[in-house]
Amino acid sequence: MSQEIPTAEVADPRIDVAALGEQLLGRWAKTRRTARELSARPEAHRIEGLSLEEHRARVFDQLGYLVEQKAVHRAFPERLGGSDNHGGNIAGFEELVVADPSLQIKAGVQWGLFGSAVLHLGTREHHDKWLPGIMSLDIPGAFAMTEIGHGSDVAAIGTTATYDPDTEEFVLHTPFRAAWKEFLGNAGVHGTAAVVFAQLITRGVNHGVHAFYVPIRDADGFLPGVGGEDDGLKGGLNGIDNGRLHFDRVRIPRTNLLNRYGDVAVDGTYSSPIESPGRRFFTMLGTLVQGRVSLDGAATAASKVALQIAVTYANQRRQFNASSDTDEEVLLDYQRHQRRLLPRIATTYAMSFAHEELLETFDQVFSGERDTDEARQDLETLAAALKPLSTWNALDILQECREACGGAGFITKNRFTSLRQDLDVYVTFEGDNNVLLQLVAKRLLADYAEEFRKLDAGVLARYAARQAEDVALNRWGLRQLAQSWTDAGSEKRSANFLKDPQTQRDLLADRVSTMVAEVAGELKGAAKRPQAEAAALFNHHQDRIIAAARAHGELLQWEAFTRQVDAVEDAGTKSVLTWLRDLFGLCLIERDLDWHLMNGRLSGQRARTLGPYINRLLARLRPHAQDLVDAFGYGPEHLRAEIATGIEAERQDEARAYYRRLRASAEAPVDEKVLIARRRASEKARLKERGSKARVGRSGA
Amino acid sequence: MSQEIPTAEVADPRIDVAALGEQLLGRWAKTRRTARELSARPEAHRIEGLSLEEHRARVFDQLGYLVEQKAVHRAFPERLGGSDNHGGNIAGFEELVVADPSLQIKAGVQWGLFGSAVLHLGTREHHDKWLPGIMSLDIPGAFAMTEIGHGSDVAAIGTTATYDPDTEEFVLHTPFRAAWKEFLGNAGVHGTAAVVFAQLITRGVNHGVHAFYVPIRDADGFLPGVGGEDDGLKGGLNGIDNGRLHFDRVRIPRTNLLNRYGDVAVDGTYSSPIESPGRRFFTMLGTLVQGRVSLDGAATAASKVALQIAVTYANQRRQFNASSDTDEEVLLDYQRHQRRLLPRIATTYAMSFAHEELLETFDQVFSGERDTDEARQDLETLAAALKPLSTWNALDILQECREACGGAGFITKNRFTSLRQDLDVYVTFEGDNNVLLQLVAKRLLADYAEEFRKLDAGVLARYAARQAEDVALNRWGLRQLAQSWTDAGSEKRSANFLKDPQTQRDLLADRVSTMVAEVAGELKGAAKRPQAEAAALFNHHQDRIIAAARAHGELLQWEAFTRQVDAVEDAGTKSVLTWLRDLFGLCLIERDLDWHLMNGRLSGQRARTLGPYINRLLARLRPHAQDLVDAFGYGPEHLRAEIATGIEAERQDEARAYYRRLRASAEAPVDEKVLIARRRASEKARLKERGSKARVGRSGA
Repeated sequence: MSQEIPTAEVADPRIDVAALGEQLLGRWAKTRRTARELSARPEAHRIEGLSLEEHRARVFDQLGYLVEQKAVHRAFPERLGGSDNHGGNIAGFEELVVADPSLQIKAGVQWGLFGSAVLHLGTREHHDKWLPGIMSLDIPGAFAMTEIGHGSDVAAIGTTATYDPDTEEFVLHTPFRAAWKEFLGNAGVHGTAAVVFAQLITRGVNHGVHAFYVPIRDADGFLPGVGGEDDGLKGGLNGIDNGRLHFDRVRIPRTNLLNRYGDVAVDGTYSSPIESPGRRFFTMLGTLVQGRVSLDGAATAASKVALQIAVTYANQRRQFNASSDTDEEVLLDYQRHQRRLLPRIATTYAMSFAHEELLETFDQVFSGERDTDEARQDLETLAAALKPLSTWNALDILQECREACGGAGFITKNRFTSLRQDLDVYVTFEGDNNVLLQLVAKRLLADYAEEFRKLDAGVLARYAARQAEDVALNRWGLRQLAQSWTDAGSEKRSANFLKDPQTQRDLLADRVSTMVAEVAGELKGAAKRPQAEAAALFNHHQDRIIAAARAHGELLQWEAFTRQVDAVEDAGTKSVLTWLRDLFGLCLIERDLDWHLMNGRLSGQRARTLGPYINRLLARLRPHAQDLVDAFGYGPEHLRAEIATGIEAERQDEARAYYRRLRASAEAPVDEKVLIARRRASEKARLKERGSKARVGRSGA
Repeated sequence: MSQEIPTAEVADPRIDVAALGEQLLGRWAKTRRTARELSARPEAHRIEGLSLEEHRARVFDQLGYLVEQKAVHRAFPERLGGSDNHGGNIAGFEELVVADPSLQIKAGVQWGLFGSAVLHLGTREHHDKWLPGIMSLDIPGAFAMTEIGHGSDVAAIGTTATYDPDTEEFVLHTPFRAAWKEFLGNAGVHGTAAVVFAQLITRGVNHGVHAFYVPIRDADGFLPGVGGEDDGLKGGLNGIDNGRLHFDRVRIPRTNLLNRYGDVAVDGTYSSPIESPGRRFFTMLGTLVQGRVSLDGAATAASKVALQIAVTYANQRRQFNASSDTDEEVLLDYQRHQRRLLPRIATTYAMSFAHEELLETFDQVFSGERDTDEARQDLETLAAALKPLSTWNALDILQECREACGGAGFITKNRFTSLRQDLDVYVTFEGDNNVLLQLVAKRLLADYAEEFRKLDAGVLARYAARQAEDVALNRWGLRQLAQSWTDAGSEKRSANFLKDPQTQRDLLADRVSTMVAEVAGELKGAAKRPQAEAAALFNHHQDRIIAAARAHGELLQWEAFTRQVDAVEDAGTKSVLTWLRDLFGLCLIERDLDWHLMNGRLSGQRARTLGPYINRLLARLRPHAQDLVDAFGYGPEHLRAEIATGIEAERQDEARAYYRRLRASAEAPVDEKVLIARRRASEKARLKERGSKARVGRSGA
């Protein structure tokens, strides 16, 4: 076990805020800057207190503004006026959340889902026919995948598209109420077309879910056979007109099938470049991964805004005067306040750095630079691992920031509450977080099975249980950690141990691999058992396997963070960022400390030093808190929170000046407590005097 | 260590829902029923989508309706039309949250804060003069305590009330911007008077914070010298017109001082029945504890509504067909879904039973039945311990329920999001949760110090560290747990151990007392050190001591739950409720399992059986989930959530009937996957046939 201290620590480190800010902006820094400049304009901002109708109308108009500003076409083909820039498109898109999450998501519906489906699932004829109108917003459209009865389980949707060779048309139909399309942005009011996902049936065979381009509305309302309902008010994102759609034997031309991955000939013959229906389905769905990628980034951006506001306030606001009679403490000097905010800054850095890597991976696949089946699967797994973490973290961060600002945090103009309301649904849409983590878990189990296909399962389970040193297991990061850790280390040695990145990586990685190995061992052979039994067995481990997937995502975040720490050149920045990475890693380890203890990865003695060491890290990081959030790079035009304008410092200064003047004047009232203390002191003195007189009297007697 | 199994387990237990419902309603069941009947009426309901102005106007009108219905005068004196019923008043009041939290809180401002301040801080003359108008809503009023610069630290507010003997008036003044009164319900629009808290200054002495009755508005707006601002939109509770107030040398008669605990004579002489200014301050504030008590109850009521909706949906909604080809699983059959909802049901039972005890304690003090200094302090500590837990839990429960219902949970008409938005501020108002827990912690430390005043601190710390058997320590629940627990128990023995209530109590109680003892040891002598050093030392342990206070509150909840389990007579109900209590206790122990391991309270081996045992409890409780939430007793008129009306079961039934008909008909399309499987099977058969022919050929050769 290496005990090296990896980073040369600087005596009194300072962060190079500008350079760190640049690093956070990442590869598409220029696009992000352009998008932030746009998000800073009043035209793009949310106006609070609008009615549902007003907010929807405003956001629709804002989409037009985005078109004018050429802000949303980056991912489309050059020949149609786009720039084939996939990573940059997402980077720019996710910054819109800072202006108004409704604007971000409504733009996402129009160009990221509806437009992308035509782009990625359609072929050139479709592109030429519909993309110009979609790009210009002449065709506002909905993305009609989810149904009332089927959200996460898209393969089981009920809508059918049956081919009629007599008329060369598809007949779209909603066979029952649960098959109504649901929660569709643009379906409530604005959409004139939709990409509708339905079971493609031709010649008596159901070829599974395919996408169809379907006109739904004209100036007079729904077209014949199309119906729907407005979803009305939601818990947030009320600038978007979500709604339901249903179809009563609606006929569309055969060529409205978006036929990149599956086509029907005039005579009804089905063909597809992908033979396996399962793989075909996942390939089609995989083209829409950018939704998840962009939510990961938007959740990160919103977290940055929240922390920049809350830390600014915590550095100005004072409350209670514990350490002196006249000066109240600044909130961020309280340990509890540090515990509430600083680990969340660390988490946000981890989210930001991991997101940047996700964006790179996304760009490699979608630019064609590395577009293989394997790369697509990796991308989907990465997105499925990170999106749940960042969207849940964003809600946690927004809430903690709001609470850390007390009542002021609850006032709408200070931003937290509306952002949280809008981001709430990010944790269940574009893939419910629990379902996504289960997908990740299944991938982890499949990879594990692949690796050990030839080994006996019982042996494997025993391996995992014993944490045996093994070449194969080591690829999974399992290590013989226990032996060197049970030594009775001094507190200093324990700190050196905890801050060693190798320790953090080993603990985090080992937990993932052990949990996967354990579950894999217990599920071994399940596939050969009756379906209901196999399902029950998997279900019996569902909670644990989801926990493993979560831990896997966190490990990826930790690794991305560490790579970025390694990339820093400025010594001061590197020092502080190393502490921040340590804080991130150690807080994860602290959260699952019971696991590390139960499994012998950490001795009780070492474990007991973890909490105090984290507190030391907090104290060390506290002076850098403002720099760390300022490096996020949002200006007042993005924060738009009264309490982050410096108004609190002004008020505190005014109050303190008032009391200083009062103390210096003759007018200051005396505090009753002081008066009582004085009276007691003089009584005591009088008693003492009397006593000494008595003694004098006695001694004189 | 007793290994007895305390509850006779019933083979196939059933809950007596009606009886359990009655038990949950508690001592003031009749009042709760009356209040629920009122909350069920459309007149009391929130209408979603109203503008700020419309919602405010509606809620103000609803206050009038409450007066008409005689729903809000229970706590006032009989001679003025009340019924001197303090516990019942809170029980009824907190049920209003189910109609609209804005209505609850606005009623709380008018009668619970403004009216209560006149009642408890004023004297008979004040009661006769103002209470009738306050009770009838002729005088809508604000409770002006909090200032922009001072929320939690009320003692340090900046507003002054200086006595002028020449005119026999107090002069109310706001000396600087941070001293503006802030977040005051009724101050934005409706209030015509306010109880204003200010530093009372007479004859050059500041006697600390006192309350003054101050008219602020007439039909033409603010009275001379009074000014203010509307707080505008908030993250929730927008039916309440919160606002700011400030005073520019506003003169009020001497007799407008609410003088129960402190008076100023005509000549300016100050007098008080309580000599110590500190005790006087806390006594005055203590009369307002009912705000915290009622938030504890309202948070519990909202949690019940949320769980009743989410569990109903989880029992109807299906998704994914893991265990059969045709039937999808009901959500609540998934282990993860059980993990998400069932422990939260257990927590809500704990909150409900603990709240009932808090209400009893409150009633004893306020009815005069047990109105001693000690009883008041106990009440305040209990309220300060429980309110943070229940309000935080409510947010957690509302959010998990919303997520567990997916997109449907995000639609406003399904209730979760608006309730969560409204209850958000419950965690920081009427005492910020972190500040309240710190108060509890200080009380725990003070009690500890009291008990061990004569013992040496170093000895104590060592006692705590060694968990020595000691008579004194045993009063704190410390036990020599480790020795009997390190035995290599079988899984069954471990389960018997974990479900023993004595085990749960010991583990929970021991953690509180050990943490308190440890911090006490480290703080020993701090009081004698310079103020700044003592403050720094306390701050160094702030996070841990707040954790101890939280654990203390949870222990109180566990004990209240256990007392109610013991009180159940029906055997089936008792069985299920015992499992539920075990789930509550064991989930708490699981959350802090690292502590129990590090401190040798649980062996690694026993700890490893905890998770699996909790999973077994979940499976056992799962069939009772609906009964457990139905026992909360809210009807459709309270839930008012579309997804809890049975609509989901109807949709699922319709869809399943459709597929059954389809399968039975000749029209069902064949699934492409089935077709491929058939083709493969026939190819295989063909190959096999060929092979056997070849073999036949060979053998024949």
